[in-house]
Amino acid sequence: MDKSCINVGILGWGTVGTGVSKILVNQNSLISKNSYVQLSLKKIVKRTLPATRVGIELPTDCLTDDPSDVVDNPEIDIVVELIGGVSGAYSLISRAIQNGKHVVTANKALLAEHGSELFQLAQKHKVSLNFEASTAGGIPIIKTLQESFTANQIQSIYGIVNGTCNYMLTEMHERGVDFADILSDAQEKGYAEADPTLDVEGIDAAQKLTLLIALAYGVNIPVNQFHVEGITDISQKEIQYARELGYVIKLLAIAKLTDDNRVEARVHPTLLPERSLLANVGGAYNAVCVVGSAVGPTLFYGQGAGEMPTASAVVADIIDAAKSIQRGVSSPISHAWLENSQTANSICPIDDIETRYYLRFVVIDRPGVLASIGSILGNCNISISSVIQKEPHCTETVSLMMLTHKAKEKDMKSALEQIYTLEVVKGDAKLIRIEEEAAF
Amino acid sequence: MDKSCINVGILGWGTVGTGVSKILVNQNSLISKNSYVQLSLKKIVKRTLPATRVGIELPTDCLTDDPSDVVDNPEIDIVVELIGGVSGAYSLISRAIQNGKHVVTANKALLAEHGSELFQLAQKHKVSLNFEASTAGGIPIIKTLQESFTANQIQSIYGIVNGTCNYMLTEMHERGVDFADILSDAQEKGYAEADPTLDVEGIDAAQKLTLLIALAYGVNIPVNQFHVEGITDISQKEIQYARELGYVIKLLAIAKLTDDNRVEARVHPTLLPERSLLANVGGAYNAVCVVGSAVGPTLFYGQGAGEMPTASAVVADIIDAAKSIQRGVSSPISHAWLENSQTANSICPIDDIETRYYLRFVVIDRPGVLASIGSILGNCNISISSVIQKEPHCTETVSLMMLTHKAKEKDMKSALEQIYTLEVVKGDAKLIRIEEEAAF
Repeated sequence: MDKSCINVGILGWGTVGTGVSKILVNQNSLISKNSYVQLSLKKIVKRTLPATRVGIELPTDCLTDDPSDVVDNPEIDIVVELIGGVSGAYSLISRAIQNGKHVVTANKALLAEHGSELFQLAQKHKVSLNFEASTAGGIPIIKTLQESFTANQIQSIYGIVNGTCNYMLTEMHERGVDFADILSDAQEKGYAEADPTLDVEGIDAAQKLTLLIALAYGVNIPVNQFHVEGITDISQKEIQYARELGYVIKLLAIAKLTDDNRVEARVHPTLLPERSLLANVGGAYNAVCVVGSAVGPTLFYGQGAGEMPTASAVVADIIDAAKSIQRGVSSPISHAWLENSQTANSICPIDDIETRYYLRFVVIDRPGVLASIGSILGNCNISISSVIQKEPHCTETVSLMMLTHKAKEKDMKSALEQIYTLEVVKGDAKLIRIEEEAAF
Repeated sequence: MDKSCINVGILGWGTVGTGVSKILVNQNSLISKNSYVQLSLKKIVKRTLPATRVGIELPTDCLTDDPSDVVDNPEIDIVVELIGGVSGAYSLISRAIQNGKHVVTANKALLAEHGSELFQLAQKHKVSLNFEASTAGGIPIIKTLQESFTANQIQSIYGIVNGTCNYMLTEMHERGVDFADILSDAQEKGYAEADPTLDVEGIDAAQKLTLLIALAYGVNIPVNQFHVEGITDISQKEIQYARELGYVIKLLAIAKLTDDNRVEARVHPTLLPERSLLANVGGAYNAVCVVGSAVGPTLFYGQGAGEMPTASAVVADIIDAAKSIQRGVSSPISHAWLENSQTANSICPIDDIETRYYLRFVVIDRPGVLASIGSILGNCNISISSVIQKEPHCTETVSLMMLTHKAKEKDMKSALEQIYTLEVVKGDAKLIRIEEEAAF
């Protein structure tokens, strides 16, 4: 099939859909100059009509409220799914694939849950299922893992992949404000949703980590099978103490290949040395560090969300699919979720990881407290690298901060259980893991 | 043509060639897991035989001293050129292309000089000519510009693309050593060649900039047609004064699209705000910032040279070519150097650029000197943003540092000509351009 013009249909005309339509309509000649493909935006599905958007004039009859005008339309070559959600998107994408259409999606939640089925379906129907925009917005991290680092065994991935959390942590670090205040500020500015749970609880980052792990290791680890911890417990105190110790707190999505060929997967707040590149990724930006066996440490930085950055990735995916159609070949299918691409054996549970820790205990200011805690840690093979005790301010309790050397998570859990039985220790410790290895 | 195994021949078994052979032989099953292609290393051409390398055992009869065993060998599907230099490489690559072979090269000097002819030849013979390793080593910046940012008009590129210079400037900044000392240190460590001219004079960076500009703007600007300035004039004094002012000096390769659709191209030492990401790219690492119309600011960081990082990019190119062969289609040809992909009109000469400047004058310590210099600058439309004068140390001259607001380069030249006629000014000023816009 040698088609001179490739027809595109979009499901959903929200923020990203609007950006994609702007590029396809307003930048059409730029696209053909850049990549020698001729794209035509034929249909956009929007649930409630009529609708208009500033900065874009759609072709006549482009808008429709019926998804089958896209997924069942013989004229459409490429279906772009931007409605979000899982079940509705799943059934529309499946139908589009069964109708022989190439699909582009930005839907990480869908792929994290149904990636395997959808990629197998796409393979069966010899169409592509591109998803660059699903992770880290405009940053081409999916293509990099799929095409540029193919000569590498991926050793580790450290990602700042949630712009909302990074915006909030950056503001907390730079302006000294507290979590609750910055959350309402982020909501006002549109950086956080009315219900911020998916972002601040780390779930969005975990879904993206699932995709990165599938690409890097060929294993499919559902979000509920690894440690996911958000930023809701990070107070201004932790930000300040971390800063005094020379660290910045970031929400990281982390994947590592262990020596015994298991995959470590976790999302949690992390202390990073303040001069490292990742620590200096500020505001709503994203960055992903990938360490490969041949290429060594790399970092990819850019906007992880927003109308035009995400649209940039979606349109690149559309162009890739269009090139395959024009060349008359079935597109390269992503092998990430297909069984025989596995390069790792199984998941490494959080208890088995080894890392450095920041700990803050609230203790009664009494002689011997440090000795008691230190002795329990020592008995659990945890060695302290530095301690700070803050003078009390008219209270009888003080904050006792410690950084540890590398220790096993299960030893830490067992030590904390014992420490919590001490009468002088008030409440649970604040525990934040440290990642020196991500420090480049 | 559906081939189950793709045969590879390598021209040159130096540092990068050794890395490529290691990956092809030792990591063969990883490659087929990662990308579903079966590669076989058939021949390596090395001028003097016999030869061995630590860490790799080649297949029998693999080594040869005759290039035609690769470029004219009907068994070979993909030719990897890693001999460097221009004329010999040009003729071997041309012959390989004419023989219908796909070509992978890391040779920026060759492409900067003969890119147009070679890409036209490759297009004519329907083969690919991949060159990811030519710029910024393991960082996939070529693929990103060619495939991921196709929905963008590229607005600017700021690259730290010469690891030798970046290593030297980093050491000068961090250890306070002078240029000459660090050059011999870099030579001892293998970061700098015996003849370091290509690196320290900025020519290597300029060749890479030529490639990036061809990809971003579809125009071919030879190295001798834009401003290229190396780091040989950067003394410890400039490093220290820059630091006092809150800046770090980096050698940057810069390209920008001007408002009137011309391309600014230049390579020179640049002051960057010390907290910016680019300023924190240390040692022999490379980083490229790309600002796109849709994606906004992005940064790509990694090792720009060395055996395995460069081999990572070469092998990714080999795999891309192999996939095309397996799918039975002619590979996507890079359109960068083909005439009708132009998105910019012409080159913007350095006289027309506008930037901020760091200036250091050596002047006689006498009243009225600052006024004389300031008045000439003012008359040339150059406004001073800050001034530092250093106390003299037993000499009658003092250093007078200034940062200017944005000014036109031609106004600066004219101002300096007038300033040099002042009796109180000794020798030429040190002039370093400042790039605040690259500061993210």
